[in-house]
Amino acid sequence: MADSKLEFGIVGLGRMGANLSLQALEKGITVAGFDLREIPADLIRAGMIRSPDYSGFRSLLSPPRAVFLYIPAGPAVDNVIEDLASNLEPGDIIVDGGNSYWGDSIRRHRRLSERGLHFIDLGTSGGIEGARQGACFMAGGDTDPVRHIETVLLKLATPGGYVHAGPSGAGHFTKLVHNGIEFGMLQAIAEGIGLLKNYRNELDIAEILGCWRHGSVIRSWLIDLMAESYRDEGGLDQIPAFVDDTGEVNWLVNDALHMEVPIPVISQSVMQLFTSRDDKKYWARAIAMMRHGFGGHAFGASEPVERERREGRVGGFVQNTDKELG
Amino acid sequence: MADSKLEFGIVGLGRMGANLSLQALEKGITVAGFDLREIPADLIRAGMIRSPDYSGFRSLLSPPRAVFLYIPAGPAVDNVIEDLASNLEPGDIIVDGGNSYWGDSIRRHRRLSERGLHFIDLGTSGGIEGARQGACFMAGGDTDPVRHIETVLLKLATPGGYVHAGPSGAGHFTKLVHNGIEFGMLQAIAEGIGLLKNYRNELDIAEILGCWRHGSVIRSWLIDLMAESYRDEGGLDQIPAFVDDTGEVNWLVNDALHMEVPIPVISQSVMQLFTSRDDKKYWARAIAMMRHGFGGHAFGASEPVERERREGRVGGFVQNTDKELG
Repeated sequence: MADSKLEFGIVGLGRMGANLSLQALEKGITVAGFDLREIPADLIRAGMIRSPDYSGFRSLLSPPRAVFLYIPAGPAVDNVIEDLASNLEPGDIIVDGGNSYWGDSIRRHRRLSERGLHFIDLGTSGGIEGARQGACFMAGGDTDPVRHIETVLLKLATPGGYVHAGPSGAGHFTKLVHNGIEFGMLQAIAEGIGLLKNYRNELDIAEILGCWRHGSVIRSWLIDLMAESYRDEGGLDQIPAFVDDTGEVNWLVNDALHMEVPIPVISQSVMQLFTSRDDKKYWARAIAMMRHGFGGHAFGASEPVERERREGRVGGFVQNTDKELG
Repeated sequence: MADSKLEFGIVGLGRMGANLSLQALEKGITVAGFDLREIPADLIRAGMIRSPDYSGFRSLLSPPRAVFLYIPAGPAVDNVIEDLASNLEPGDIIVDGGNSYWGDSIRRHRRLSERGLHFIDLGTSGGIEGARQGACFMAGGDTDPVRHIETVLLKLATPGGYVHAGPSGAGHFTKLVHNGIEFGMLQAIAEGIGLLKNYRNELDIAEILGCWRHGSVIRSWLIDLMAESYRDEGGLDQIPAFVDDTGEVNWLVNDALHMEVPIPVISQSVMQLFTSRDDKKYWARAIAMMRHGFGGHAFGASEPVERERREGRVGGFVQNTDKELG
């Protein structure tokens, strides 16, 4: 494939698409954009060319054209791909930068190949800040079209934050695994904060998180984020104890079941999100019911437990590990 | 407490103690060291003053003296503290920089207080590299003695990597929670690598890990370490699938049971280490026995499963999430 000037088309100018476009425009890349909604004014000001519809990319870009999708995963992706494909020419490249399921990406790659079109699944990480300043890209697809868009990707990635992970599907699978690891990390950090909050003495958790950012084994972007948010929000008291998610890591748990790969911590992290949303706790009612049934245990907290709790057993336990000197 | 020149004593010149001493000596801090074994030659060359025994610190340091312990957790810590305490004067400070259990530290603080001595529990993170270049310190103890050693700690910490976490015990508790989070992160990353290794296509995992270091949500010191080790070792094939540990996070799981704080992911991470060391898998034998008993299932892999496995069901599953277009 011949080199061409740095340009691409983009469909979907939500938070990820808009910020990547803004970064690209500032770096001198020509960007033709289309969105079902109005194109944000700052993108037009930054020089984005407005495509009036899916057919516009054909005249606005030079072949082989590369058009990126940044739209939510789901059936809409197939509809947009169909609309785009019928307006592009053989040799053109459709790049799905969203969080589509990798199995769908393999299917889309196969169907577009039959029509002479290229398809790349491009996992994109780093959040909104990454899209604006420098993202992390995981590409899956055939070598030639991936090479063709690499020049643009390397300009939009933070230095080093790009990999051609493998053939079609590998980009979205790699991104999905990244998201699974992310869930496990979130849950591990969150459990640690739960322990700090329940310690016998009040701890300055904002200071502790701040310390962990520097020189600790767990230093990470997520600890940075947690430390800053904890300080900005003045702790957790005003934060709802309800975690929503977009459901992608469910696919990974499903993959693990089919691949027969044990991922207890990633699976448990998904279950903990469900637990956060489970205000009925039918499982707890069921256990209480059975305990009441077989042991005559009272519903609710029993008196002795309450007494022990008040007297500081809970959170006040001091163990001597050095038994002989205890 | 009056300011004094920058100096401290240290007992235990293993990897952590030796590297912290080396860092201190290079920064112009006077260090008097004692170890049951020979003091490493590079420490003597760097200017360490050799204390002939526990009593040596009294003449080698000016009051109030601060003596750091960097020895493994356990009963030996009590013995060393007793030997030191009987050779120090009221107002002197013993600092336990090891991974002692926080409950033991509270007990040690209380007993030393009765003799007029100060005790600080000092969680130290960052590994050997941190000790050499700049560590992460979490101190627990009374304000005055903590302030007294802060000048030295701030010189040995990476910038920002110091916190006075709270009263006696809080330093070691905070470090323990840090280690629990570390275990969860290790397991989450490891499960992700298991998924990548079992994917339908071979993936360049070294490259993927390298990419994740830059701009991803999971970027962290542990991902850095994993990426470098994976490349240096040429993958996982030569690495034994057996994980040892020093058992501290077991204490944290025990604490969580007493505090009644749910930490499913940290607990599971500990269990996974046990699983890695469990070459007998009696639990799997027991399940096989019961399945054989109630369903007549054959021992070992059954033929149809083997066939499916060969035909690629396992690791080759392609799901259409977009049902209507599947």
